[in-house]
Amino acid sequence: MSDAISVGRPRLWTGNHYNEGIGRDDIFDKLREECGVFGVFGIPNAASLSYYGLHALQHRGEESAGISTVDSGSGRLVYHRGMGLVKEVFDQNTLESLVGDRAIGHVRYSTSGESRLANAQPLIFKYRDGDLAVATNGNIVNAPSIRRELERQGSIFQTTSDTEVIAHLIARSDKDFVEATKDALQRLIGGFAFLIMTNDKLLVASDPNGLRPLVMGRLGGGFIFASETCALETIGAEYERDVQPGELLVLDGDGLRTERFEPAGRRAACAMEYIYFARPDSDINGVNIHSARKRMGRRLAIESFVDADVVTGVPDSSISAAIGYAEQTGIPYELGLIKNKYTGRTFIQPSQELREKGVKMKLSAVRKVVEGKRVVMIDDSIVRGTTSLRIVNMLREAGASEVHVRITSPPFANPCYYGIDTPDRRELIASSKTVEEIRKAINADSLYFLSEEGLIEAVGAGQGLYSGGMCLACFNNDYPTPVNAESDKSCSC
Amino acid sequence: MSDAISVGRPRLWTGNHYNEGIGRDDIFDKLREECGVFGVFGIPNAASLSYYGLHALQHRGEESAGISTVDSGSGRLVYHRGMGLVKEVFDQNTLESLVGDRAIGHVRYSTSGESRLANAQPLIFKYRDGDLAVATNGNIVNAPSIRRELERQGSIFQTTSDTEVIAHLIARSDKDFVEATKDALQRLIGGFAFLIMTNDKLLVASDPNGLRPLVMGRLGGGFIFASETCALETIGAEYERDVQPGELLVLDGDGLRTERFEPAGRRAACAMEYIYFARPDSDINGVNIHSARKRMGRRLAIESFVDADVVTGVPDSSISAAIGYAEQTGIPYELGLIKNKYTGRTFIQPSQELREKGVKMKLSAVRKVVEGKRVVMIDDSIVRGTTSLRIVNMLREAGASEVHVRITSPPFANPCYYGIDTPDRRELIASSKTVEEIRKAINADSLYFLSEEGLIEAVGAGQGLYSGGMCLACFNNDYPTPVNAESDKSCSC
Amino acid sequence: MSDAISVGRPRLWTGNHYNEGIGRDDIFDKLREECGVFGVFGIPNAASLSYYGLHALQHRGEESAGISTVDSGSGRLVYHRGMGLVKEVFDQNTLESLVGDRAIGHVRYSTSGESRLANAQPLIFKYRDGDLAVATNGNIVNAPSIRRELERQGSIFQTTSDTEVIAHLIARSDKDFVEATKDALQRLIGGFAFLIMTNDKLLVASDPNGLRPLVMGRLGGGFIFASETCALETIGAEYERDVQPGELLVLDGDGLRTERFEPAGRRAACAMEYIYFARPDSDINGVNIHSARKRMGRRLAIESFVDADVVTGVPDSSISAAIGYAEQTGIPYELGLIKNKYTGRTFIQPSQELREKGVKMKLSAVRKVVEGKRVVMIDDSIVRGTTSLRIVNMLREAGASEVHVRITSPPFANPCYYGIDTPDRRELIASSKTVEEIRKAINADSLYFLSEEGLIEAVGAGQGLYSGGMCLACFNNDYPTPVNAESDKSCSC
Amino acid sequence: MSDAISVGRPRLWTGNHYNEGIGRDDIFDKLREECGVFGVFGIPNAASLSYYGLHALQHRGEESAGISTVDSGSGRLVYHRGMGLVKEVFDQNTLESLVGDRAIGHVRYSTSGESRLANAQPLIFKYRDGDLAVATNGNIVNAPSIRRELERQGSIFQTTSDTEVIAHLIARSDKDFVEATKDALQRLIGGFAFLIMTNDKLLVASDPNGLRPLVMGRLGGGFIFASETCALETIGAEYERDVQPGELLVLDGDGLRTERFEPAGRRAACAMEYIYFARPDSDINGVNIHSARKRMGRRLAIESFVDADVVTGVPDSSISAAIGYAEQTGIPYELGLIKNKYTGRTFIQPSQELREKGVKMKLSAVRKVVEGKRVVMIDDSIVRGTTSLRIVNMLREAGASEVHVRITSPPFANPCYYGIDTPDRRELIASSKTVEEIRKAINADSLYFLSEEGLIEAVGAGQGLYSGGMCLACFNNDYPTPVNAESDKSCSC
Repeated sequence: MSDAISVGRPRLWTGNHYNEGIGRDDIFDKLREECGVFGVFGIPNAASLSYYGLHALQHRGEESAGISTVDSGSGRLVYHRGMGLVKEVFDQNTLESLVGDRAIGHVRYSTSGESRLANAQPLIFKYRDGDLAVATNGNIVNAPSIRRELERQGSIFQTTSDTEVIAHLIARSDKDFVEATKDALQRLIGGFAFLIMTNDKLLVASDPNGLRPLVMGRLGGGFIFASETCALETIGAEYERDVQPGELLVLDGDGLRTERFEPAGRRAACAMEYIYFARPDSDINGVNIHSARKRMGRRLAIESFVDADVVTGVPDSSISAAIGYAEQTGIPYELGLIKNKYTGRTFIQPSQELREKGVKMKLSAVRKVVEGKRVVMIDDSIVRGTTSLRIVNMLREAGASEVHVRITSPPFANPCYYGIDTPDRRELIASSKTVEEIRKAINADSLYFLSEEGLIEAVGAGQGLYSGGMCLACFNNDYPTPVNAESDKSCSC
Repeated sequence: MSDAISVGRPRLWTGNHYNEGIGRDDIFDKLREECGVFGVFGIPNAASLSYYGLHALQHRGEESAGISTVDSGSGRLVYHRGMGLVKEVFDQNTLESLVGDRAIGHVRYSTSGESRLANAQPLIFKYRDGDLAVATNGNIVNAPSIRRELERQGSIFQTTSDTEVIAHLIARSDKDFVEATKDALQRLIGGFAFLIMTNDKLLVASDPNGLRPLVMGRLGGGFIFASETCALETIGAEYERDVQPGELLVLDGDGLRTERFEPAGRRAACAMEYIYFARPDSDINGVNIHSARKRMGRRLAIESFVDADVVTGVPDSSISAAIGYAEQTGIPYELGLIKNKYTGRTFIQPSQELREKGVKMKLSAVRKVVEGKRVVMIDDSIVRGTTSLRIVNMLREAGASEVHVRITSPPFANPCYYGIDTPDRRELIASSKTVEEIRKAINADSLYFLSEEGLIEAVGAGQGLYSGGMCLACFNNDYPTPVNAESDKSCSC
Repeated sequence: MSDAISVGRPRLWTGNHYNEGIGRDDIFDKLREECGVFGVFGIPNAASLSYYGLHALQHRGEESAGISTVDSGSGRLVYHRGMGLVKEVFDQNTLESLVGDRAIGHVRYSTSGESRLANAQPLIFKYRDGDLAVATNGNIVNAPSIRRELERQGSIFQTTSDTEVIAHLIARSDKDFVEATKDALQRLIGGFAFLIMTNDKLLVASDPNGLRPLVMGRLGGGFIFASETCALETIGAEYERDVQPGELLVLDGDGLRTERFEPAGRRAACAMEYIYFARPDSDINGVNIHSARKRMGRRLAIESFVDADVVTGVPDSSISAAIGYAEQTGIPYELGLIKNKYTGRTFIQPSQELREKGVKMKLSAVRKVVEGKRVVMIDDSIVRGTTSLRIVNMLREAGASEVHVRITSPPFANPCYYGIDTPDRRELIASSKTVEEIRKAINADSLYFLSEEGLIEAVGAGQGLYSGGMCLACFNNDYPTPVNAESDKSCSC
Repeated sequence: MSDAISVGRPRLWTGNHYNEGIGRDDIFDKLREECGVFGVFGIPNAASLSYYGLHALQHRGEESAGISTVDSGSGRLVYHRGMGLVKEVFDQNTLESLVGDRAIGHVRYSTSGESRLANAQPLIFKYRDGDLAVATNGNIVNAPSIRRELERQGSIFQTTSDTEVIAHLIARSDKDFVEATKDALQRLIGGFAFLIMTNDKLLVASDPNGLRPLVMGRLGGGFIFASETCALETIGAEYERDVQPGELLVLDGDGLRTERFEPAGRRAACAMEYIYFARPDSDINGVNIHSARKRMGRRLAIESFVDADVVTGVPDSSISAAIGYAEQTGIPYELGLIKNKYTGRTFIQPSQELREKGVKMKLSAVRKVVEGKRVVMIDDSIVRGTTSLRIVNMLREAGASEVHVRITSPPFANPCYYGIDTPDRRELIASSKTVEEIRKAINADSLYFLSEEGLIEAVGAGQGLYSGGMCLACFNNDYPTPVNAESDKSCSC
C-alpha cells in the first residue's frame, strides 16, 4: 500500500558508541545467537534457495535478513536487505529480481540493543577491483584495534559492524584478491564463519579454532554452505562435510579448491550450539543436536536423580533433554510448561499492572499437570537467574509441591567473545554465587548443573561420535584465543 | 507508514455464493478449527484482557480478530476488527481507545476459501433498542433456511456469516431482549457458543448438546468466558466451570443469572477438540488435553504394539500422544520430524520446480534420527491421505527402514456440521477405503486407527474424569442433531 | 509488506450517535464536499475506467474510495473499498480482479468526524433477489424518521449511512425492482444523486430539485455517469447531458430507458458547487466553473472596486475569481498567497509552540509580493471567520499595508441540508454578525460579499448560459424542500 | 502495522554501473531538480524545524528524505532517512527522538534511474575524529576521477553518491577539520551547496560560481540554511542573505564565522532555477521567482505578440508567465489546461489501450475554455519535445482552432553538469533542430523562445534587481567551469 521505505527509528551515533535506546525483550533473559549464513555456488535460482535456506536458519537471527546474488554470465552483483524475518523482508518480486546462480545470505540478531538496517548483511562494498559482498557469523575479538588503526590511516566507516574491517583490509592490500583475503583473515582473532562474494568468486572461511559452525553440501552440480545442516535438509541438498578450522575455500570458474589461511589451532566447537542454539534437527560435526540433548538429559538423571512425579522441560530448547531425563528415570514426561508460539516482535507487552494480575504471555504452567506434583524442571542454562526464578514460581503458583531444577550445562560464569551476546560478567549469577546460593535465588527445592565431563560425553566423546574439542570458556574461563580487557565481545555481524 | 486501510482483495458476491479465488494453504490438509470466543464482564481494561485472552486462543483462528467493548457507565459500544493475527490487528493506541469493563472478542478461521473483513467478528448491528455485538464459535445447521425466510420478509444481509441470522431474529421479535434471544436460540439447530453484548447486558449461550467448548472463569470481582481454559490461565483468571448445554447466562447490572433456552439434549462434546484442536494445556469438561492425548498414545500402544526403534509424532498436535506411546512401549521417543515455527501467511511457497528438487518448508524429517531405523509415526487423523503419504515418504527418503503409522482417532469418514471445516465426504479417504487400502495409499508398513472405545476411555471414561458423552459423528455418522442434504456445514463464524 | 488489514481506529457506537473523537483538520475551516459518484455501463474494463474517473473526482472526497463491478455474462458482483485516496485504495492486482463491463464507484468525505470503513461506498447488500450495490452523493433529509420506522419493523443496520435506508425500502417492497426503487425514491426528501447496481441492472437517479450534479456521457457503445464533467474528460468520454431532476434512468440488457420517479420540482442547482466545490475545468448544467468564477471576480470588481496595488486569491478555489477581478480592474494579479501541494492526511501538524513561532504549513504569504502593498484578497466564502482572520493577518505580517477582502458569494448564514457538511448555525459568523462586524472580526480594511443577483448573473443568467434556478438556501434561508428541527443535515454518503 | 523495513527493490551493482530497471515516469519529460538542503544551528527542536523546512523544499526532491541532528550538550549524532516524501518518511515518534538544536536535512531526486536508500542523505560516516553527516545539492564534475584515485589508495565506497568523495578526502587529511574541509572543497569542480555536520560543528559551503542556491536566515538566536527562501518563510525565519560563491561558513560553540575556500569565480546563478525549478514564492539573489516569471511572460509578449483569444499556461510552473503575457497583451488569461493534483508515485499508469482511448491522468485540456479559440500556450522549456507535442494535441482535440507556443527560455540545447538531470545532448530537440523544425515537431501554429537578453532582463538586470551573472550554459554552451567528455553529469546528491 505504501512505498515508504524507512530505516526505522533514528540511530544514535556518538563518539564510539551507538545507542538506540530500544528496550531489550528481557522477559526471558536468554542468550542470543548472533547470526546465520548461507551460500550458493553454481545453482540456478540461487536467491530462492537462499530464501528457504535462511528461513531454516531463522532461529539464529530474527532482526534482519539479506541476500546478494551474482550472475555468472554478467558478473553483476545485486542485493536486497531489510529489517525483520526472512518472510517479511522478501516478496516474490524481490526474489525474482535477484538473478544469478551464486548467492550469499544472512540472518542477524543485533547486539548491544542495536538493530540498524545499515548493519544488515550481506554488507556491500565497492573497491578498486569491483564489488564485494560479505556475510559473517561470529565475532572478531581484535576488531576495535584494527579499526582504530584503519581510521588513523584515513578510512571512513559506515557501519558499526566489525565485518567492515575485513573489507578495508582487503581493499588496502596490493596482493591479488585471494592472497589479500588470506592476509586479512590472518590478522583476525576470534570465532567466525565468513562468506565473501565478488563479481567472479565465492570465498568461504572458518576461524582457526572452528568455533562457529559451518557446513558444506552439494545440490545438483553446485555447492551449498550453511551455518547448520537443517538448511541443507530444507532445500534437499546433501551434506558433504563441515568446513575445517583455518580453511579457506575458493570457488570460481575453475571450480572449488581448498586453501588454508592459517594452520588449524586447538579444535574448539562452541558448546552452547549443542546445548541451546542450534536447531534440534541439525548435526554439528556429525552430532545430531536433539540426540545430544537427550543424552544430556539422561546424563543429568544419572548424575543427579531425584524422586519426583513428573519431568518437564522449559520450551523449546529443553524438551529433548527432559524426555531423556524421563526415559532414564522412568518418571513420566509431561507438558508442565507451554509456550505461546504466536508471540513476536510486534506483540504488545502486558503492563506492569496486568503482569501483577497474572497475565502471562510467552510461557504458562499447566495447572492440571503440575498441581500437587513433585516436578523436575529441565533447563539449558541459567544466565542472570531471573528467568529461572520466574518459571519456578510459575510452577509453584500452579500448584507444584516441589520444583527440582536440572540444568544441561555447567554454571555459565564467563562472557563469550565469539559471537554470543552475553551480559557483563557481574550480571552472570554463576560468576559470583555458589550452586546453593543460586538454588535459593531461584527458589528451587534442589538444583544441579551438568558436569563438564557429562556434557563432553553427552555431546559425543563417550559415544565415539565426535572426538574434537569444545570451547567451554563460558563455563571454565579457558578461552581458545587471546582475549583482554578491551576485547570486543559483541558479535561482528 | 500508510493510512491506507483496505478490505483486501475484491469480493465476488454472486447469486448465493462468494468466491475469492484464494488458494487454500493445502500443503498439509489438516482440518481447520473455526473460531475462538472470549468475553469479559465487570473488569477494568476489558479490552487488554481480551487481547491476551484471544492471543491464547489464536490457534483457533488466525485469519481475523476483533474486540468490542462497552463501558458500564456510558453504555457506549466500541469495536475494532481486522484481518490477521491478534498481534497484527491491535496496537497500543487501538487497545487504549477500546474503553470499558465489558468486552467480547473473536478470532476466526474462514471457511470455503473466504476471508472477508466484513465477516470478521464481533459482528455489530444497530436495532430498535440500541447496539448489538455478537461473537460465535460453531455452526448453525439450519441457517440457510432461516435466512431464506428472513429474505422473503424483506431482510437484507451484509455478511455471509450465519451469525447475522440471530441478530435479525432478535430484532424482529416483540419480546424483551432476553426472551427474544431465547426464542431465537431455540430456532437454531447446530453446535455453537454465543457471546452477545448490548449496551447494558452480556449474554452467553452454549448449544443444547454442548458440542463446542465454552468455559467460565473469575477474575477480581468479574467474569471471564472463553473457548478454552488456556485463555483463563494466560490472564490469571480462576476456572469456575464449563457453560452447560442449553444454558443461557445473563450478566447485567444485577450480576449473573443462569437460565435455559432449551432443556439439555444428549451430551456430545466434540471429540476432535480433544484429539486435535484444543491447546494441550487446556482442559475441556475437566480433562487436560495433553494428558488425554498421552493416554490416547498409551492406548494405541496397547491396541497395536509394533516392534520398532523410535517413536515420533507429527508436530505439534501428536507429540503428546507419541510420548505416551513411547512410555507405554519403552521404545525411545525421538525427534524424527520437525516443523519450522516461522512459516505463516506471508511466506512464499516454493515453486513446483523447487518442491520437486526437495525444498521442504514446513516439516522436515531428521535424517540422523531416522536413518536405518524402524519408525512408529503417531498422527491425530487422516483426512484426505495426501499429507500422511507425504510425511511417510519424507521419513523413507531420510532413510527410515520401516514406517508404522498409528492414528489417535478412528477413521474420519463423515463431514462435520458443527463448526469444523471438513472437505466433502467423497474427499475423505476413510469414507470409501478400508484401512488396508489406506495403508497402501499412504505407503506405510502398517497402519492402525485407535478404536472408538479406546478414544472414549483415553478422554476420560476409564479414568473417571469425564462421564459425559462425546460427538463421534465424524467417525460413526451418529449426529447429535438432525442434519440433511441441504444443511450448511460451514461454520457460522 | 504486511497482510494486516484493519478497519482503523475503534468505532464508538452508542445510542444514536457514533463518535470517533477524531480531531477535524480545522486549520482552515473550509466547507467540505460530501462525495463523488461514477458509473459505467457496457464498456470493457469498467473498473479501470472507474479508477481514472474517481481519481478525477478525488477533490469531492478524500477519505474512502470504492468500486463495485458486475460482469454482464455471469452477473457476478465484485467490490473493493478502502480508506484513503483512490491511488492508495487500489493497486494493479485489485483493479484486474474487478472484472466486468458495468461498475459504480464512489469517493467519500466523512461528516460528523466519522470516517468508517463500514460506511465506505458502494454499500453492498444481499436481499431476496440477489445483490445490490449503492453509491450516493448528497443527503436524505428525512432518513432518521424512515430509519426509526424500519427499526420498529425489525430492521437491523450495519452502517450509519442513510444510504442503507434505500436498500431496506427496496428489499421490503413486493413490487418488481424498478417499481420498488421508484417507490423508495419517492419517500426520500433531500438532495441526492444515486447509482444503484444489481446483478443485471444499473439505475441512476437525481433528486426532484436537481440539487446535486450528475452528468451522463458516452464512450464507445456504452454509458458513463459522473458527478462532474471533468471525469468524462479524463477518460475521453463525450458529454451527453445532465441527468434531470426527478429522472430515473434504467440500464440493462435492453439498453437505456428514462423514467420519472417524481415530477421535477423547482430547479435548484447547488450554488456552492459553482462557487467552491466543483473542479474549475468541469461544467455544471453547461456552465464552465472556471469561467463562472472569473465572472464572479469581474462582477465583484464592478460591485465593489477598491484602489489597490495587487490582487491575490486564496488558493486554490479563488484563483480564477482573482484573475477576473484583476482583468476587470487592471490591478495586476500576483501570487500573494501560496499553498503547499504536498500536505495531506499523514502530515504532522506543527505544535502550538511552533505555530506561535510562525511555522505555516499549508498556506504562506509571499513577502516579496505583498510587502508595502495594498492587497485585494479574493476568497469564496467566510464560514466561521477564523480562517479569513488568519490569512488576513498572514498578509499583514508579510508587510501588506492594506488588506481588502472580496468574497465571491453572499454571506453564508444557514446550514446546508443537502450534502455539504456545515457547522451549526450558531458557528456561522454571518448568521449573527453584520458585514461590518465580520470585517472587524477578520481584521480587514474593507470587506464585500457578492450580491445574490451578481452571483446568479455570474453563473449564467446574464450570459444566457443557464436559465435554471439555484439553491441559495445557505445565503437566503429559502430551502427547496421541507426541512425541520430534527432533519438530518449530514450527508447520506 | 508492519515492522518490516526494507531497502526496497534489489540493487544492481556491477562494474561501474547501477541499474535498477525502474521505468522513469516519462509521461512528461520534464527536467528534474536534484535536491534540496536545510540546516539548523542553535535552535531547540531542530528536527521539527527541519521537517517543516524540508517540506517546503519538497518540490526539489520527492524520492527520499533525511534528517540528522546533534545535541550541543552531548555531541551525539542521530539520523533518520527513508524513501518517499517528507511526510511519509517521518512520523511524530521519529521526529521526537531526533533530539538536538543542530540539524541538517535533505530531500532528493535520484538520477540515472537510481533510487537507493543507501544514497539517501544526509550521508553518515564515522572517521578518526568522530561522526560526519553530509547533505548536498548539486554535482561534482570531477568526482569520478577523484573516486578512482581514492580506490587506488584502498578506499572502499558504500554509495554511488559523489558526496561520499568529500568524506574520504576529509578523513585522509592530516590537517584540522576546517582546513581539511577547505582542501577537499578546493579539489572539487562543479556546482554545489554543502551542509557538513560533525559532533561539534556545522559547515556550510557554496561553489565558487554560486551555481546552486543557498540562503541564510535567522530564527531566535540561531541560524537557518536552506536551498530556497520559501523554507525560511514556512518556519517563520528572517532572511539574512544568500551564501556567497566560494564561501565557507563555520558554526560552532564560538558562533558563526565566515571563511573562503576559494576566491569567488565568475558569478553564474543557475537560470533554470528562475525559469522552472524554484517555488514561485521563493527569492533567489533577492529576486522573487513569481515576479521574474511574470516578467518573462510580459517580455515574451513584447518579443513575440500574437493575436489570440485566450492565454493559458502549462501548470504549475508556467502559470505566472501566462498571467504576465495576458496582462501585457490584454488577451484574457484562462484555465485552458488543468493538472490533477492527486497524482504521484503510487498512481497506476493507464494501459496503452486506455491511453489510446483518451485516458489522461495528469493534465487535461478544458474544452469549454479552448473550444473554437486561438490559444497562446506558455511553457517554460522544451526538452525532448514529446511533452509539448502531447499538450498541443490535447488542446487541438479539445477544439482549439490555433495553438501558439511561447517558451519562457531560449532553446535548451546543452546538458547540465551542475545538478540538473538532463538527457543526453542528442535527445535534446534543440540541439539538432531549428525553431521552425521544432514548431513542426510539436504541431504548433507558431513557436517562439524567449531571447537570452529577454531572460536576463526579466530575471532582474533591467530592473536593477540582480546584477550578478547567470549560468546559461544549457542555452549557449558557455559552462562556467571546465567540463570534458568524461565529466559526470549526474548530480552528487
